Amino acid sequence: MPKSKSKNHLKVKAKGSVLPESILQAATRLFIEHGFDGTSMYEIADALGVTRTAIYYYFKNKEAILVALTDNITRVAAELAEQAAQHKELTSVEALRRVVSTHVKLILAHGHQFRIVERSEDRLPTRLRAAAADYRRSVVSNFSAVIERGIKAGEFRPTDARVTALAIIGMCNWTAWWFQPGGRKSANEVADIISDLTVHAMIRTSLGPESGSNISNVLRELRNEIGYLEQRVAEGSD
Amino acid sequence: MPKSKSKNHLKVKAKGSVLPESILQAATRLFIEHGFDGTSMYEIADALGVTRTAIYYYFKNKEAILVALTDNITRVAAELAEQAAQHKELTSVEALRRVVSTHVKLILAHGHQFRIVERSEDRLPTRLRAAAADYRRSVVSNFSAVIERGIKAGEFRPTDARVTALAIIGMCNWTAWWFQPGGRKSANEVADIISDLTVHAMIRTSLGPESGSNISNVLRELRNEIGYLEQRVAEGSD
Repeated sequence: MPKSKSKNHLKVKAKGSVLPESILQAATRLFIEHGFDGTSMYEIADALGVTRTAIYYYFKNKEAILVALTDNITRVAAELAEQAAQHKELTSVEALRRVVSTHVKLILAHGHQFRIVERSEDRLPTRLRAAAADYRRSVVSNFSAVIERGIKAGEFRPTDARVTALAIIGMCNWTAWWFQPGGRKSANEVADIISDLTVHAMIRTSLGPESGSNISNVLRELRNEIGYLEQRVAEGSD
Repeated sequence: MPKSKSKNHLKVKAKGSVLPESILQAATRLFIEHGFDGTSMYEIADALGVTRTAIYYYFKNKEAILVALTDNITRVAAELAEQAAQHKELTSVEALRRVVSTHVKLILAHGHQFRIVERSEDRLPTRLRAAAADYRRSVVSNFSAVIERGIKAGEFRPTDARVTALAIIGMCNWTAWWFQPGGRKSANEVADIISDLTVHAMIRTSLGPESGSNISNVLRELRNEIGYLEQRVAEGSD
C-alpha cells in the first residue's frame, strides 16, 4: 500500500515516527468525526504532528487512504471467510462457528475503519470499488457455502442459504456501530454470543409448538423440511 | 413536519403536485447518489421539476428534510417495537417473532430512507440527534425486554439479553443494505426467514454434541444454564 515518492524520500526518512498505520488510524478518527469530505490531508498531518509531505510520502491523496482502509478490511474479510469455509474436516456447525467468530473479531478489531469503509464506497475509484464489491460477494458466498453444506449434511435446518448468509453477516457487521471497547462485554465474548446465536439459529431441531405456536409458521417449516427431503430423494443421496 | 410559509402560499398552491412525501423520496435518492453534502435544494427541486420555493414551502433547508426522514424511521421504529413488546398475551416466542418481523418490514419498506438516516446522524441538529438516540435506545430496550421475558419464562436460552438484542437488531437493520425489491425473495419472505432464524436462535433446546462439538462451547452453555437456574432459585420463582 505505501507508495514510494523518491523526491520526498530523505525528508520523510528524517521523520521516522510516521507510519502508514498511524496515518490510517488518525484519518479514520477524523473521517468519523468530520466526514470524509470534511477532512483535509492537512488536518490528518496536523493530528499526527507531522507535515503534509510526510503524509503524501505514503498516500498520494485522501482516496488512497480510503483504498488502504478498504483493503485492510474487505480483502482480509474475504480471505478469512474463505480460509474458515475451506476446513472440510470441520463439521458444518464448527465451520459456521468459525466463519462467524472470525468475521466478528476482524470487525471488532477495526470497528471505526470498518464503518468508514462501509459508508464511503462511493468515494473509491471505480476499479477499486469493483474489487471491494468482489471481496464482499466472496464473503457472502463463503458464508452461503458453509450453510449449504450444513443443510445437505442434515446438520442445519433447510432454509434459503443466501438470505440466511446475508442476515448473519448483517448481525456481525452491525457490531461496528454498537460495540464499545472496554464495555461490559469483551470483543471475544460478543463473538461467542453471536456465534452461539448463529449455531442455534441453524441447528436442526424437532418441530413442535415451541417453534412458534402459530399454525402458518409451523406449516412453513414443515414445507421447508419436505422440500429438503424431496431434494435428497431426487439426488438419490439417501 | 410541513412548515407553513404564508408569503409563498399561493405560489405553491398552484403547484398542487408537490407533496412532502415526493420531496422526501427525491431527496433520499439524491443523498444516496451524491451524498448529503453533494446535494443542493436546487437539485432536489430540479429532480421534481418544481421551483426551489415549492420545496422551501415544506422544508426550510436540507437539515429539515433529514429531520423528517429520521422521524419517519426512528420514531416509528421505536413505537412499533414498543407496541409489539407490550402484547403480554403473546408467548415470548410469538412476541419475539412479532418485534423482529415488524422491524424488518418497516426497514424494507423504507430501505433507502433508513440508510440515509443511519449514516447522516452527525448532520442532525443536536436536539434532534438526542431524540433519535432516544428512539434507538427504546428499540433496543423493547427487544431486550422481550428476550428477558422469554429467558425468565424458560422459553429462551439464557444469554446476555442486551447483546442479543443488539445482534438481532443488526441482522434486521443490515437488510437495508442488501435487500433488492423485486428480487428472488419478497420483503415478507425475508422478514419470515429472519424471524425464523431469531426464534430458533433463542428457543431452549436440549444440550448435546450438536450444539458445537467443542468442549469449551458446551461448557459455556452449561455455565449459562447453571447461572440461569441459580438466579431462578435465588428469586424463589420455582
